[in-house]
Amino acid sequence: MGYMELIGFVAAILTTAAFLPQVYKTWKTKDVSGLSLLMLIIFFIGIIGWLVYGFLKHSPSMIFANSITLISSALLIFFKIKYRK
Amino acid sequence: MGYMELIGFVAAILTTAAFLPQVYKTWKTKDVSGLSLLMLIIFFIGIIGWLVYGFLKHSPSMIFANSITLISSALLIFFKIKYRK
Repeated sequence: MGYMELIGFVAAILTTAAFLPQVYKTWKTKDVSGLSLLMLIIFFIGIIGWLVYGFLKHSPSMIFANSITLISSALLIFFKIKYRK
Repeated sequence: MGYMELIGFVAAILTTAAFLPQVYKTWKTKDVSGLSLLMLIIFFIGIIGWLVYGFLKHSPSMIFANSITLISSALLIFFKIKYRK
């Protein structure tokens, strides 16, 4: 792995690591009041776009990061629908 | 602009658009209780990594998206420090 993908993977781990506690917190507290379903769906579609772009750019770190974020944001959408009042 | 960068820019606009309401909401409500300073800093460093990676990959859409997100996350860090109790 070259230094370029090393930087990409460090970035991927940092931004993904910062996102996961939000998923965990939402799961534990079931507090989805601060989350907008529309915004989550826009974000989800955007991540699909980044994933496609990562494949086209032959970028392992983008494919890795956006796959995890795609699952995370799908979970948030699921929680939002399940726990909304 | 080829179709690859078109996909990248659509992704950039969608994920950035989903992030900006959070910045606006935090600014208006001054409610930073749900934000973790450590997580914001980890995210900020990660975005710097993605920005560097975007330059190395010669990716205009990554440079565009991560520049805006860098400013947005810097604002959230500023709000978190300013408004925390």
